[in-house]
Amino acid sequence: MPAKGVCAMTSARFSKVYQGELRVPMREVRLSNGSSVTLYDTSGPYTDPAYEPDPRRGLPRRREEWVRERARAGHPVTQVGCARRGLVTREMEFVAVREGVTPEFVRQEVAAGRAIIPANVNHPESEPMIIGREFLVKINANIGNSAVTSSIEEEVEKMTWATRWGADTIMDLSTGADIHETREWILRNSPVPVGTVPIYQALEKVKGRPELLSWEVYRDTLIEQCEQGVDYVTVHAGVRLAHVPLTAGRKTGIVSRGGSIMAAWCLAHHRESFLYENFAEMCEILARYDVSYSLGDGLRPGSIADANDEAQFAELRTLGELTAIAREHDVQVMIEGPGHVPMHKIKENVDLQRELCDDAPFYTLGPLVTDIAPGYDHITSGIGAAMIGWYGTAMLCYVTPKEHLGLPDKDDVKTGVITYKIAAHAADLAKGHPRAQAWDDALSDARFEFRWEDQFDLSLDPETARSFHDETLPAAPAKTAHFCSMCGPKFCSMRISHEIRDAGYAEKAAEFRRLGGTIYVE
Amino acid sequence: MPAKGVCAMTSARFSKVYQGELRVPMREVRLSNGSSVTLYDTSGPYTDPAYEPDPRRGLPRRREEWVRERARAGHPVTQVGCARRGLVTREMEFVAVREGVTPEFVRQEVAAGRAIIPANVNHPESEPMIIGREFLVKINANIGNSAVTSSIEEEVEKMTWATRWGADTIMDLSTGADIHETREWILRNSPVPVGTVPIYQALEKVKGRPELLSWEVYRDTLIEQCEQGVDYVTVHAGVRLAHVPLTAGRKTGIVSRGGSIMAAWCLAHHRESFLYENFAEMCEILARYDVSYSLGDGLRPGSIADANDEAQFAELRTLGELTAIAREHDVQVMIEGPGHVPMHKIKENVDLQRELCDDAPFYTLGPLVTDIAPGYDHITSGIGAAMIGWYGTAMLCYVTPKEHLGLPDKDDVKTGVITYKIAAHAADLAKGHPRAQAWDDALSDARFEFRWEDQFDLSLDPETARSFHDETLPAAPAKTAHFCSMCGPKFCSMRISHEIRDAGYAEKAAEFRRLGGTIYVE
Repeated sequence: MPAKGVCAMTSARFSKVYQGELRVPMREVRLSNGSSVTLYDTSGPYTDPAYEPDPRRGLPRRREEWVRERARAGHPVTQVGCARRGLVTREMEFVAVREGVTPEFVRQEVAAGRAIIPANVNHPESEPMIIGREFLVKINANIGNSAVTSSIEEEVEKMTWATRWGADTIMDLSTGADIHETREWILRNSPVPVGTVPIYQALEKVKGRPELLSWEVYRDTLIEQCEQGVDYVTVHAGVRLAHVPLTAGRKTGIVSRGGSIMAAWCLAHHRESFLYENFAEMCEILARYDVSYSLGDGLRPGSIADANDEAQFAELRTLGELTAIAREHDVQVMIEGPGHVPMHKIKENVDLQRELCDDAPFYTLGPLVTDIAPGYDHITSGIGAAMIGWYGTAMLCYVTPKEHLGLPDKDDVKTGVITYKIAAHAADLAKGHPRAQAWDDALSDARFEFRWEDQFDLSLDPETARSFHDETLPAAPAKTAHFCSMCGPKFCSMRISHEIRDAGYAEKAAEFRRLGGTIYVE
Repeated sequence: MPAKGVCAMTSARFSKVYQGELRVPMREVRLSNGSSVTLYDTSGPYTDPAYEPDPRRGLPRRREEWVRERARAGHPVTQVGCARRGLVTREMEFVAVREGVTPEFVRQEVAAGRAIIPANVNHPESEPMIIGREFLVKINANIGNSAVTSSIEEEVEKMTWATRWGADTIMDLSTGADIHETREWILRNSPVPVGTVPIYQALEKVKGRPELLSWEVYRDTLIEQCEQGVDYVTVHAGVRLAHVPLTAGRKTGIVSRGGSIMAAWCLAHHRESFLYENFAEMCEILARYDVSYSLGDGLRPGSIADANDEAQFAELRTLGELTAIAREHDVQVMIEGPGHVPMHKIKENVDLQRELCDDAPFYTLGPLVTDIAPGYDHITSGIGAAMIGWYGTAMLCYVTPKEHLGLPDKDDVKTGVITYKIAAHAADLAKGHPRAQAWDDALSDARFEFRWEDQFDLSLDPETARSFHDETLPAAPAKTAHFCSMCGPKFCSMRISHEIRDAGYAEKAAEFRRLGGTIYVE
């Protein structure tokens, strides 16, 4: 890992702490006033100074024993299966500590299908996390090499980099050669759940010719990925033959890769989607590994003009039907959402998804609130992501500055993750999550008390905050200065606020004159 | 100006066009399919290849004759004065063309006080623009040297740079030496309205000692700035003695510089604010020059914890009283707003402001929707800005990545402006502004038709979009490739969409097989 990332987490002022019997990892920020703030930590063992990473060995398989225990006890394989039978799994206990709620509350939310814990029995390296509207809003970072560029090592590095900055899950969207090997490296080294889109690998197996796809090729690919340890799979089973014509009048047609592949298959054979027709069998496969569905929105809008149209909502209704079938099979389900949506049409997406999919967790890409800013789509989508998170979306799929233009490099991945942590946290605040505001309060206290280093350390990106400050006021003394580089000493509003607070008003007036009114000097 | 900025506007594919008798400047983007898109242009004569800039001579004084005409005709000095008497000024005709509405509609909105046209009779270089909820959402960029850093030349360059990227007004927040001279340079070279905070210069005149301020010192400073041509002034007349104690329990006290200066004065003398007590006389001064009020929110919240508190809303009620007084004097008024506000508390700000200030235009700083991301506050605030713009805020004051940390350099100014253009345009879309979506549609058409150069040219930042694309696919042919660098040729969803659109379904199935299903190759 780049020194940059490491030092952000293992400096004298940061430490990795473990809570409870299950040793749930947290990030502790020690403040100069003696207090400390404990934050949710997605970075895995990599940020524990005591841990020596070895990509070839992979991460410790901490969940292995938990899975065996369950098997020995004859409990159901899936988290939802256990939850429905009143069983609280280790994974539920783990996420309860992470979220600061009771294990029983976690069990109830999972049992009701309002939350999922994506945790393939074959991915014991992962640290359990939960996706649901009653919990902290999560973010996903997409990685994956394409036919055009990038290497396995790069993708593994992007994964650890993304989780270091706060990605709660990652999706491997590789489409080029070595899909299997890339995924193996990522799974064995990922502390967070890993999602994939199996149709991409299936298409590689038929030389990129959609019409040669079949249920058999797809099923074998799915089983291969379940065996490897993929935690959730995007399945575009809602793209039915009858939906395809609904996209003909659109400004930007079908912009989902998986959606377009299935649409092409349906047209080539003029038949119903094999994913739709074999959905029940697919559920049986996923149930054996506790792989969760991420039901893909293959017909999501790719432009403001196409938002909330007939094609999009027709597919959403189908995803509702499929959710019910998955639940009959004790398979965990979340639903993917758009896309490109203007602000005034965002809430309708959440309300309709809740209604049609019986409160299954919603997982959206942005949405981008305008089409006119390629190069800044982390921002156009961060706006929509914060809003849709507030409205109840459980996980936000990040968008990087390279969206629509190219493949993200490491800096783009970091920018995308930080932007989405902002959106997710803003949503937690707006939803009134009991723990959310403590972080803002700690940072604002540090700011008001001129504890500069604390302000930097509490920020989402400490180095950037520190370096921006130092560009204007490099001197070390400036770190303790009771003013900032924006206003300078004479105009520091917060200095004056302290005066106002520290003294009564009559005394104040007198004291002001006594001091010649110079309230600014140190 | 850097070649970068210039080439963005004067390439073969961009041109400056002038509409109507008043030669209202617009930016025309010529597309490869023969059509063109005309966009609102704030960049002034600088982007007209025929214009030779000379900072020492300043911009052409195009409004000089308009002002004289009005004087000869014995018309009122202020836009609102004219509007109320049924007179349509040249400035109203100009903004009508810019906004695509009738001059009469502009007059009605100005007469009602729902919109303002900040245009000091002594700033004839400015191109008239309008701020009101019924018009395009505008953005302001703050510049200004501080005691700590920067020079006059830099500030003038930042101003032309900010307007080049889309700033509708700029505020000169200089607090250091040479305030008068810096402002003179900016005014004579600014094609957009210029706002200031006169208390900053007044404080310099009393050696930075707030308690030495007086109405006389302030009044003389105000007259000096009105004479120079300042178009609107932030006046913190709502910070009354009785409001100061309301801030004592806050997490971050008073974060407005002007607000803290007035609070310090009130406490030092234990007297009512001289700005509040002399407000009527101030109106008489502003009316002589048609300088608009921007009634400052000196008690805006500086943290999530302080949002929508008693101090903030007590001041807002006072701003409502002052709005009524200003209108009696035919002075144009807008109201400043927060600050730091979580998403769920944003709308209340707009609703209360409309009610208390009788629909005077709202002008907000962000708001930032979380405190935890110093270094990324253009994004935390861009989220709040887009939302509050949708709710009805007329102008958004930008925030740069350096907020809370340091002074913005040119790159920060550009990032802040682009981020706020995104927020403002997203708000225009959500408000259903009749012209807003045409821009998104043009860009999305270009994207779907693989017209890469058109997509770049239609974006808010063409060079960045082009350079991001070229990082992954540098070759010139890639500019005409019917796939993008994200998916590569085999996974291009839009390619498949074209197939779906271009052929009937039965033929489709046949054709697919005939072509061996290779729908991807060029």
